[in-house]
Amino acid sequence: MTEALLQTYREAMLPALEATLQRYVERHIRPAALARMVAYHMGWEGRGAGPRARGKRVRPWLTLLTAQAAGGVWEPALPAAAAVEFIHNFSLLHDDIQDQSPLRRGRPTVWHLWGVAQAINAGDALFALAFRALADLAPNPACSEPPTALLATACLRLTQGQHLDLAYEGRTDLDEDAYWPMVEGKTAALLETAALLGAYTGGLGPKQAAAYGQFGRALGLAFQVWDDYLGVWGDPTRTGKSTASDLVARKNSLPVLYGLRQRGSAFARRWAQGAIREDEAPRLAALLADAGARDYTTAQAQAWTQRAHAALDAAPAADPQAHAALRALAERLLKRDA
Amino acid sequence: MTEALLQTYREAMLPALEATLQRYVERHIRPAALARMVAYHMGWEGRGAGPRARGKRVRPWLTLLTAQAAGGVWEPALPAAAAVEFIHNFSLLHDDIQDQSPLRRGRPTVWHLWGVAQAINAGDALFALAFRALADLAPNPACSEPPTALLATACLRLTQGQHLDLAYEGRTDLDEDAYWPMVEGKTAALLETAALLGAYTGGLGPKQAAAYGQFGRALGLAFQVWDDYLGVWGDPTRTGKSTASDLVARKNSLPVLYGLRQRGSAFARRWAQGAIREDEAPRLAALLADAGARDYTTAQAQAWTQRAHAALDAAPAADPQAHAALRALAERLLKRDA
Repeated sequence: MTEALLQTYREAMLPALEATLQRYVERHIRPAALARMVAYHMGWEGRGAGPRARGKRVRPWLTLLTAQAAGGVWEPALPAAAAVEFIHNFSLLHDDIQDQSPLRRGRPTVWHLWGVAQAINAGDALFALAFRALADLAPNPACSEPPTALLATACLRLTQGQHLDLAYEGRTDLDEDAYWPMVEGKTAALLETAALLGAYTGGLGPKQAAAYGQFGRALGLAFQVWDDYLGVWGDPTRTGKSTASDLVARKNSLPVLYGLRQRGSAFARRWAQGAIREDEAPRLAALLADAGARDYTTAQAQAWTQRAHAALDAAPAADPQAHAALRALAERLLKRDA
Repeated sequence: MTEALLQTYREAMLPALEATLQRYVERHIRPAALARMVAYHMGWEGRGAGPRARGKRVRPWLTLLTAQAAGGVWEPALPAAAAVEFIHNFSLLHDDIQDQSPLRRGRPTVWHLWGVAQAINAGDALFALAFRALADLAPNPACSEPPTALLATACLRLTQGQHLDLAYEGRTDLDEDAYWPMVEGKTAALLETAALLGAYTGGLGPKQAAAYGQFGRALGLAFQVWDDYLGVWGDPTRTGKSTASDLVARKNSLPVLYGLRQRGSAFARRWAQGAIREDEAPRLAALLADAGARDYTTAQAQAWTQRAHAALDAAPAADPQAHAALRALAERLLKRDA
C-alpha cells in the first residue's frame, strides 16, 4: 500500500520536475549547440532519448518528497530538486570523461560524441546551472546555513570522493578503510543534501532538518552498498550486466575491499595479479562469498537501511503520508535487483 | 599620483585577499593531496610558486576597489573577491586541459603533472569553493538578485564563451561577428560580475550598482582587445613571447577576425592555408596592419576604455579616492605592454 502511495507521489512530482529541469536549460544555456549537448546528457534529445536515458531522478525525488513530508507542500522545492539533479548530472558527465567510459545508460557519452574539451565545458555548464536554479529557492530564515553553502559543501565532498576514487585506481594495497571516505563523498553527500534542502524548504529549523539529512545520508550509503552487492552477486538477467561485472571493471567496491582485509587469501592473491577475465569472475565472486564478503555486504546494506529508518522516525512529519512514502522509498532501494 | 594611490590600495588589499583565498582552501578542500593540486595551481606551492605564478589577481582587486569606492569599506567584500578569483582559476585549469597547454605562467599545468582526470576534478573543487566562499557574503537587502544568481550567471556566460572558442577551432570561415559573443563570455562576464559584487557589497541598489557592472564589462573588453593587440604587435622583449605569437597559435583574436572580413586579401588567403611558422609571423602581422587591423584594434581598445570611463563617471562614489583609483586601473590596463 505504501508502495502504491510512493508511486502516486512519483507520478505527480516527476513530470513537474522534468519540466522545471528543461525550463532551466532552455532559459540559461547558450548557444543552442551547448544546450543540445546538455539536453542529450539529460536524456531529452538525440538517439535513445527517453525515460531510460534520464535515469531514476532519485535525488530530486527525495528532495520533493522530503519537502512534502516536512512542510506539506513539495512545489516550492522544485528549484532545489533541479539543482540537486543538475549537480548529479554534472558529476556523471565529468566522471565519464575521467573513466573514459564510452557508454552511459546504453548511449554514447557526451565526450565520446563531442570530444573531451566540449564535454568538460558541458559539465561546467550543468554545474553553473545548478547554482542558478538554487538561487530561485525562497529563503527560509530558520535555516542556519544558506542553501548555497549546503550545496557547495556537498560539491566539495563530491570532489573529495572523486579524488579518492581516482587515486585508488591501480592500487592493490587498499582495504575497507579506504571505502567509507570515498562513498561518503561520491554518494552520501548529495543524497544528504537533497533531503536537507527539502527539509529546509519545508520550513524546518536546523535541528529538525538534520534528521532528514541523516536519513538521506544513510539512504545514500545503503543504496551504494547494495549497488556494490549487485555488482558482484546480482542476477545478470535482471541487472543487464555480465556476472560480477564490477570485478572485471576492478571497481574498489565494498565486497572487494572487505575481501582484501584478509591478506594472503585466494581472492587477495588473484586480485593483486591484475586484469580479471569475464570467465573467471564468477569463481572470484564465489571466493569472496566464501570469505564472508557477501554476508558482510548484506549486513552493511541492512544496517544503513535501519539507520535511515531510525533517522526518519526522529524527523517531524507535517504530512504523515509523505513521511510513510519516504520509508517505502528506503525499502524499495534495498529490495531492488537492478 | 593616482597611479601611486592605486598601488597603495593594492598593497593593502592583496595580502588580505591572498590570506582569504588560502584560508578557504585550507578549510574546505580535502584530502590533502587535492588541496596540494589546488595550492599549486593558485601559485602557493610547488616549483615556481610565488607572485608570478599567482597572476595579477585583477578580478578580485576590482571587486575590492569597487566595494571601497561604492561603500567606503572593502573588507566585507573579501568573500566575493575570493569567489571571483576561484572561478577565474577554475576556468584556467579546465582551459589548460581543453587546449592541452603544457605550461601556465611558466610552470607545468595541473593536468600535465597529475593527469587529465585529477585535473578536471581539481577544477571542479575550485568551482565549488567559489560558491562556498560567496555564501559567507553578508546579504544586501537592496540587491535585486542574490549574489549566487549573479555569479552563476557569470559562469553560464563563461561556458557559453568557452563553447564558442572551442567550436571556432580549425574554422576558417569566421569574421569579426564571431568575436564579440566569445569575449563577452570568456572575459567580460566575470569582470562585470566582479565589479557588480563589489558594488552590492558596498550597499548600492541595482540601478547604481549597474553602472559599476558596466564599468567592469567595458574594462574587461578593453583588456581583452588590448591583449589581442599585444599578441600580434607586442614587443617580444616586453611580452616574453615570440613576435606575433597569437598568429602562430592561430588564435581567433580581434586583429585576425577583422582581417578575415576582407575575403580574398593576402592575409585571408594565407590564413586559410593552415599552420603558420614562427618565421613568417612578422610578415603576416605587417599584412594585417596594412589591412587596417592594427588601427582598428587600437581604436576598439580605446573605445572600450572610454566606455569604461563613462560608466565609472555615472557610478556614485562614497569614497572619491577609490573611485579615482578605479579610473587609474582602467588606464593602466590600456598602457601596459605585456
